[in-house]
Amino acid sequence: MSGITLERAWAALSEMDDILILAHANPDGDAVGSMFALYLALRQLGKRVRCEIKDVPESLRFLVRSEAFADFPVKHIVTVDVGDLKLLNDSFREKYGDHISLNIDHHGTNGFFADETLVDPSAAAACEVLFSLFTYGGLTLTKEIAACLYVGVSTDTGCFRYANTTAKTLRAAACLLEAGVDNGAINIDIFETKTPQYVAFERAAMNALRLCLDGKCAVMRITQQDYKDAGISEADTQGLSGLPRMIAGVYAGLTVKERENGVYHASVRTKEPINAAEICAKFGGGGHKYAAGCELGRDGEDSERRLVAAVEEALKAAGLIH
Amino acid sequence: MSGITLERAWAALSEMDDILILAHANPDGDAVGSMFALYLALRQLGKRVRCEIKDVPESLRFLVRSEAFADFPVKHIVTVDVGDLKLLNDSFREKYGDHISLNIDHHGTNGFFADETLVDPSAAAACEVLFSLFTYGGLTLTKEIAACLYVGVSTDTGCFRYANTTAKTLRAAACLLEAGVDNGAINIDIFETKTPQYVAFERAAMNALRLCLDGKCAVMRITQQDYKDAGISEADTQGLSGLPRMIAGVYAGLTVKERENGVYHASVRTKEPINAAEICAKFGGGGHKYAAGCELGRDGEDSERRLVAAVEEALKAAGLIH
Repeated sequence: MSGITLERAWAALSEMDDILILAHANPDGDAVGSMFALYLALRQLGKRVRCEIKDVPESLRFLVRSEAFADFPVKHIVTVDVGDLKLLNDSFREKYGDHISLNIDHHGTNGFFADETLVDPSAAAACEVLFSLFTYGGLTLTKEIAACLYVGVSTDTGCFRYANTTAKTLRAAACLLEAGVDNGAINIDIFETKTPQYVAFERAAMNALRLCLDGKCAVMRITQQDYKDAGISEADTQGLSGLPRMIAGVYAGLTVKERENGVYHASVRTKEPINAAEICAKFGGGGHKYAAGCELGRDGEDSERRLVAAVEEALKAAGLIH
Repeated sequence: MSGITLERAWAALSEMDDILILAHANPDGDAVGSMFALYLALRQLGKRVRCEIKDVPESLRFLVRSEAFADFPVKHIVTVDVGDLKLLNDSFREKYGDHISLNIDHHGTNGFFADETLVDPSAAAACEVLFSLFTYGGLTLTKEIAACLYVGVSTDTGCFRYANTTAKTLRAAACLLEAGVDNGAINIDIFETKTPQYVAFERAAMNALRLCLDGKCAVMRITQQDYKDAGISEADTQGLSGLPRMIAGVYAGLTVKERENGVYHASVRTKEPINAAEICAKFGGGGHKYAAGCELGRDGEDSERRLVAAVEEALKAAGLIH
């Protein structure tokens, strides 16, 4: 399977009308940003468009367009930032999964579940792909569209900090600032604001943090009970996965999180020369060199043990432990 | 007083030889980055160059060129990222303060203490000014020079997070990535690595954090004893000033730090509509709209009280408290 070109994607969108836009479950900045950037773009083209989305984190609600939830019969469905059909909310997948016309994505592991797929694995975010598409189509980059795209690009790159940030990413962001994005204020709200609940959760997570494998691996296990105790939803704790790797000397930082359905999911962050995607691939997951994820199982302790064993193997292969 | 053009600055550097480079005391990423970027650039031009610098933080030592500390009689002195003569180390100022040929800087409050000054207050970092200068001069942007410039630009912008990040900043960074900078690895080392000492210091600082003015101001006072207790130097705790503003609802986050000489210094971070530079100007300090600094006095409690009073005035003027 291979994807379509910007030219074909733009033509496909131009031919559509009465469009529904969906993004992945537990939406992050790139999911919400690409959804509403595409919504505004299609409105600019005179289309009838609506969105369906659940569990938008508090910090991203300023991007949500209240007028985007009108009800009308849908002719075409477009998904954004969805690497695999199973990443849609269950109810959306059951209702719409077989009828997706176009998927716009940036994951190298894309499942090609839609009739047509525009995917650029070199892009840091789905919003970077949309930026290229809108530029190709000659769309007017309003301040509102630019803000959506900026949030997607900045959140998926840790505000341009992660290795997925390329020269192209930075040049796209430069154009978005020129379109009027108030980057300073947006970044304070998204990257530098913690609720008292988050601070409490972070403190608990820090206490759960343990070092292993000669201090070269740090692991933090989080249960549904931890979210309940702090009075916070998982969607509002996404920044936390970066913590374990932050400790000096750590090559692999693991966050093992219990999902609502009782299945443990791992977020793996590594440092050169340890490859996070290779570790996660052993569990059927994937991602990038320094940041990847996978599903483990229903037994938290066993899940953690198997993941740490995979890290041990990688550290040994790299000669970092014996 | 006004500054010189890129053309004049390039000509001035080209005419010099036997050059000493200095940066400000308590050097940050922009000071260290601009020092060694300029060192490597002048070496590329065939000049004899050396550097003098003290207290380089551990995380920035990878930029330091061991060959840059040769001893030879100096004919010209160039300073980088020095907004005012008093920001030089005392010993450097006494020895060299009256003989500085050229200062390359980005502070709007520049004191024009050198024979000639290249200053661009719209630049996010001295390294952004150097990037423009090197581009003007047609210098070959080696990977090593690009890494120095990248560190300066990224640290002064909180990795492109702060309001001082412009489209020009991002385009400069794009060129630096194209020159071969390993941004992912550098950013992990600089922005995502905490020593156990830092973690201990951070925990103590968090405990010292207090909210006032109806939760709209957060203040954290740090003494020399706190540094001693955690076994850490002030230079290694510069990231901490962002903490107080991070709490949801806070418009002004204040860090009041005792310097080695016993004088308290404030770092003020604000959110729209509160202007940090205006608050600091009342104490003879300055900076940017959302991030500024000033010197207070030798009495920590009184220093904090006066600064909070200035914040109270600003919050009242903005109608945020009554």
